[in-house]
Amino acid sequence: MNKSLSALIMLSLSAIMAAAQEGRATWIWYPGDFEVWLSNQMQNKRTERGAFFPPFWRQDGHYVLIDFHKEFDLVAGEEVELYAEGQYNVKLNGKLLEGYPKKIHVPAGRHKLNLKVHAQDRVPAIYVKGRTIVSDSTWLVTYEDKEWIDETGKASDQSGTMWLNAASWHFDQPSTPPSSFRLATEPHPAQTIERADGNGLLVDFGRETFGFARLHGVSGTGRISLYYGESKEEALATGTCETLDRITVDNVTDKDTVLELSKAFRFIWIEPEGGVQIDSVSMLYEYLPTVQRGSFRSSDTLLNRIWDVAKYTMELTTREFFIDGIKRDRWIWSGDAYQSYLMNYYLNFDLPSVKRTMLALRGKDPVTSHINTIMDYSFYWFISIFDYYQYTGDKQFVSLIYPKMQQLMDFCLDRRNNDGFMEGLPGDWVFIDWAEGLSKQGAVSFEQLLFCRSLEAMQLCAGIIGDGPGAERYGQLAAEMKEKVFTTYWDMDRNAFLHSLVDGELVDHVTRYANMFAIFFGYLDELQKQSVKNGVLLNENVPAITTPYMRFYELEALCTLGEHKYVLEEIRDYWGGMLRLGATSFWEEYDPGKQGVAHYSMYGRPFGKSLCHSWGASPIYLLGRYFLGVKPVKPGYAEYQVEPSLGDLEWMEGTVPTPNGDIRLYIDRKQIRIQAEGGSGKLILHSRTKPEAQGLTVTPLGGDRYELEIPVGSIHQVSYR
Amino acid sequence: MNKSLSALIMLSLSAIMAAAQEGRATWIWYPGDFEVWLSNQMQNKRTERGAFFPPFWRQDGHYVLIDFHKEFDLVAGEEVELYAEGQYNVKLNGKLLEGYPKKIHVPAGRHKLNLKVHAQDRVPAIYVKGRTIVSDSTWLVTYEDKEWIDETGKASDQSGTMWLNAASWHFDQPSTPPSSFRLATEPHPAQTIERADGNGLLVDFGRETFGFARLHGVSGTGRISLYYGESKEEALATGTCETLDRITVDNVTDKDTVLELSKAFRFIWIEPEGGVQIDSVSMLYEYLPTVQRGSFRSSDTLLNRIWDVAKYTMELTTREFFIDGIKRDRWIWSGDAYQSYLMNYYLNFDLPSVKRTMLALRGKDPVTSHINTIMDYSFYWFISIFDYYQYTGDKQFVSLIYPKMQQLMDFCLDRRNNDGFMEGLPGDWVFIDWAEGLSKQGAVSFEQLLFCRSLEAMQLCAGIIGDGPGAERYGQLAAEMKEKVFTTYWDMDRNAFLHSLVDGELVDHVTRYANMFAIFFGYLDELQKQSVKNGVLLNENVPAITTPYMRFYELEALCTLGEHKYVLEEIRDYWGGMLRLGATSFWEEYDPGKQGVAHYSMYGRPFGKSLCHSWGASPIYLLGRYFLGVKPVKPGYAEYQVEPSLGDLEWMEGTVPTPNGDIRLYIDRKQIRIQAEGGSGKLILHSRTKPEAQGLTVTPLGGDRYELEIPVGSIHQVSYR
Repeated sequence: MNKSLSALIMLSLSAIMAAAQEGRATWIWYPGDFEVWLSNQMQNKRTERGAFFPPFWRQDGHYVLIDFHKEFDLVAGEEVELYAEGQYNVKLNGKLLEGYPKKIHVPAGRHKLNLKVHAQDRVPAIYVKGRTIVSDSTWLVTYEDKEWIDETGKASDQSGTMWLNAASWHFDQPSTPPSSFRLATEPHPAQTIERADGNGLLVDFGRETFGFARLHGVSGTGRISLYYGESKEEALATGTCETLDRITVDNVTDKDTVLELSKAFRFIWIEPEGGVQIDSVSMLYEYLPTVQRGSFRSSDTLLNRIWDVAKYTMELTTREFFIDGIKRDRWIWSGDAYQSYLMNYYLNFDLPSVKRTMLALRGKDPVTSHINTIMDYSFYWFISIFDYYQYTGDKQFVSLIYPKMQQLMDFCLDRRNNDGFMEGLPGDWVFIDWAEGLSKQGAVSFEQLLFCRSLEAMQLCAGIIGDGPGAERYGQLAAEMKEKVFTTYWDMDRNAFLHSLVDGELVDHVTRYANMFAIFFGYLDELQKQSVKNGVLLNENVPAITTPYMRFYELEALCTLGEHKYVLEEIRDYWGGMLRLGATSFWEEYDPGKQGVAHYSMYGRPFGKSLCHSWGASPIYLLGRYFLGVKPVKPGYAEYQVEPSLGDLEWMEGTVPTPNGDIRLYIDRKQIRIQAEGGSGKLILHSRTKPEAQGLTVTPLGGDRYELEIPVGSIHQVSYR
Repeated sequence: MNKSLSALIMLSLSAIMAAAQEGRATWIWYPGDFEVWLSNQMQNKRTERGAFFPPFWRQDGHYVLIDFHKEFDLVAGEEVELYAEGQYNVKLNGKLLEGYPKKIHVPAGRHKLNLKVHAQDRVPAIYVKGRTIVSDSTWLVTYEDKEWIDETGKASDQSGTMWLNAASWHFDQPSTPPSSFRLATEPHPAQTIERADGNGLLVDFGRETFGFARLHGVSGTGRISLYYGESKEEALATGTCETLDRITVDNVTDKDTVLELSKAFRFIWIEPEGGVQIDSVSMLYEYLPTVQRGSFRSSDTLLNRIWDVAKYTMELTTREFFIDGIKRDRWIWSGDAYQSYLMNYYLNFDLPSVKRTMLALRGKDPVTSHINTIMDYSFYWFISIFDYYQYTGDKQFVSLIYPKMQQLMDFCLDRRNNDGFMEGLPGDWVFIDWAEGLSKQGAVSFEQLLFCRSLEAMQLCAGIIGDGPGAERYGQLAAEMKEKVFTTYWDMDRNAFLHSLVDGELVDHVTRYANMFAIFFGYLDELQKQSVKNGVLLNENVPAITTPYMRFYELEALCTLGEHKYVLEEIRDYWGGMLRLGATSFWEEYDPGKQGVAHYSMYGRPFGKSLCHSWGASPIYLLGRYFLGVKPVKPGYAEYQVEPSLGDLEWMEGTVPTPNGDIRLYIDRKQIRIQAEGGSGKLILHSRTKPEAQGLTVTPLGGDRYELEIPVGSIHQVSYR
């Protein structure tokens, strides 16, 4: 990665400042509003062959009028600078100040400072900076202060207003309000530029990339068409490539032009018309500055390449939010984002991006549709919060988002059919996977499984925020649903879940979806697991999966079952297969049975497929969680477990980020070195004899399993056999 | 009134065009969104002593992404011009067109045209103009089209999308999109300008007015302060006047300056500082062009003056929406607006203003608060739709707003206390009226009465749009509530409703509120009515009402009871009392017992009171409905009744507007002349002998009452005694 140092420094500073937040001013706003606003901005950047192509679900607006306040105890008076995004007023101890004050004096003593801000085109936000009076997340905000007065001027004494803590990110200067947010850019050269007959240029950037095409030394008058391609074939297919740009120039000489909208491409075919000349072409690479914390290396160079390309795929799709693919849709899809979160926990551990994405997906009330219109995508959203809490232990975010979970769950519960199952109603997209001939009819077992897990997520979150009745209710609903899933869909002869229940009749058809999720959800007993493994997962007669999206879960299930060697073979074969076809990032779909340009087609369009799709990056997660074997056992890695599995590898090493610092690990067939910066960890080993480790307590767990406590700090070495 | 002719012509043209809508293009948008957007614009124009003073309830946003479509059958191909407010795309028969087409060719045959528009700062809107393809309210719109495709490119075949008919108003030119909306202005001179010591100017515009102050011939460098006053005392009270402006000028010569924000005033005290000179002052009067249809004249010149000042009060407060008062708050308050609707039915019959106001008040889902935070104001909103339907017969609007009624009613039903009554919860403002010492504690009988009427409104509207189960449910709730109100609050000894139930205990206190509403809601039998009349309404021991707001209902109740002479005396005394004090528009509150500048104070501020308040204009309604005696009997005046009452007047004449044209009426003690442009009407007369009327059938109703059918068209004369 070749990121600008300044961006990294900026982020590090921001992290340091978050730690030492008190006394440092930052722009603040109503929680969730920046995400709604920014996601509209981003999702409306999709174009299809030069046409604006916005989402087909509801886009929400931020609250346009926000009240911010905090009370301060001042030992001495101080000058306070005030900045706002929008039209605003200022109240000191309830008294309105005239005009739009930019600087006020607050005398010693106890004072309440209010700012009320209205903005339609951007998110109402403030930045307040005094010696001790500063805007930060300790301020309280609301979109309805309900501060009426009676005819004598007395204010209401019974408020029903919900005050939330203000939200903030890294906007720490008066001059960088939230509306000024832009991704970072840096200039990248083209790898090759071929000039063709008729003045055209074929530009190759060497690998999949994203940013603004830049034309150097443009001269003349006329039109320039740019046809973008993730493949050379696509760039040259001027009639069917997915994205294009056209600009006109009028009597210019040696002009430098940066295209307005960022695009995904490796190749650009550029056609100047009317005698326009172009000297050269480069690009501004556009990216979210992040700090890479996770790593993976092993004795297998193919696997290492796969990990690197997965990482680059993640880099490209981790942007304003975790998006699906960079060519299209450039949207936030809950199912795709769900996998990005999990990969991110083993790569950057970039929690602001996870939270931004979860908030943007959910948007505002009322709920009038499943997330992205997709039933399963609502469920992934619930489960993502369950996971988020496991990885981060962040109760504050759970309490912020719990009311939004309740609203979406109410929407789901209202849509159950007469059997109590989730079945697609008009307007509900039952997605499951891109797979030819896959039936979405009736009540699909896979959806009920996700629904059940979602109810468990509700139960957990209700417990976290202290909603006892809620926890009980959701717990009961989850238990009932789980039982009903087994009594309804589990086939005693096939020893597997059947695919669906249509008009009250079970369809005698087995698919992988419900079966593989049941494994890593922990819903199956040992016998059931083995029968699913052999009868479904390793059974070639059950329709194969052709998207990296569902391969993620298929391989996760097999890892859970201890099939690490098999999984490594599958990774090499499937992701390695894409690399053999020249992939520089991982694809939306890959069917090894296809040939040539057929690989690029999807949705009935020759280049419809996305060749850089977030869900293609799953090896990051699989290798981190199931090979390095690191996972939280208590929320936020307060307790964690490391149970490495080499599969067929000679050695591997890597880093797994946690909220308490990194866990670094090296393992070969005889030795393990481990170093943890925080948390209470246990290393679980399989060894024919008792492992030896200086200064570590080794506890036998029975059979060949041993447990070692991992102290915080220095590197520990373990010998085993 | 001195309105510009062009504005009137514009409105007339607009009316004609609405009638001949087909084939005429107009800007269209998602219903309710323009109202939400415009109400934010307007309500954020309130200032208090130079500080921005927005509402304390939630301001909503419009939907930022809207899909518009219509199918057309073309005999011949045609060119179609396309205009949009925002970023947009165009699909013809599902195929996206490149870029932002401004003109397209649509060939002969059947075609579906879609435009999808995104706009954050204003309302997404389109204007489409071909020979036959034009944008109008026959287009369908949605904020979530849910048009996903599967992996083969096939679109979803089960849509759950709610398509509504597009909304429009009078934006009929490409160059006048909705975001360009401005009220009309015209220059008005000052009546007098007095120059004071120290360079100050006291400007008097002769009567209450509204608009932009305009300074002529400004020269020099320095600051100019403008202190606005509805009274001379207020303008001169530079430290306590409610509104002010300050501008700075830098080395200007003979400059003409129009102030940025419109304000309410009669007087302006202008203080130039630092040697600034001002030649003269005038204003740009700002108003909503309307066509006055209703009129009233009588033998009583005081009453005529009252009607004229009421009309002017209505003119000033009928703006982007029906607002409360023009000095402050310049907001839409449901209870105030409710009275404006009723007055409007007897003055301009301006239905777009009624609909705009009702939509703006309700805003968007979810409901998180009563309308304006006030419990009674939610109820007035329901009842206003009940009334709207009676006066207009507009089923289309009822079906648009019914889902919004349901949501608000759900909110109300969820807030009932254990007794099933509406009692203020934290965040609920129980307003009732501005009255010193008025208790809002517990479950107030007045609120239950309004709640009951609201449930009846729900029942009616459910029936209109064909929601049978809804009609039954709301009907039952209304009946139960009505019974409970009587069994709980009706005191058999006092023969009146008691004021409230606090902690399960009836408070032994009678107020006018529930009692007077019960009369014109028709909830009382004859005996009950008489006891309420004598024991409450005409009983000086029951606390008097000091706001025109509640006097509206008090006098309406007395009119219903046939006390027309008494009501006329009250009007002369109360509204005449304000005129005697120099009022040029009617006030928010008037207590005849107060003296001098004490009349101007309210809310603990010396000039807090609004001297131009919409609820001051009620004589328009009372004289139209109860003296001219015209009211709809079936929705939209399909059938109506005219039952004039002269009270103590020698004669009166007037016009009452209806959807079917005007009803004109002259009446003295012997003769009536009536002319109706439409509808099926009955004239009800009291006469000692059978009235004589050429060509009219006279039916005796028993006693001295007679009924005459009113034919449409020519003037009919009736003699009676």
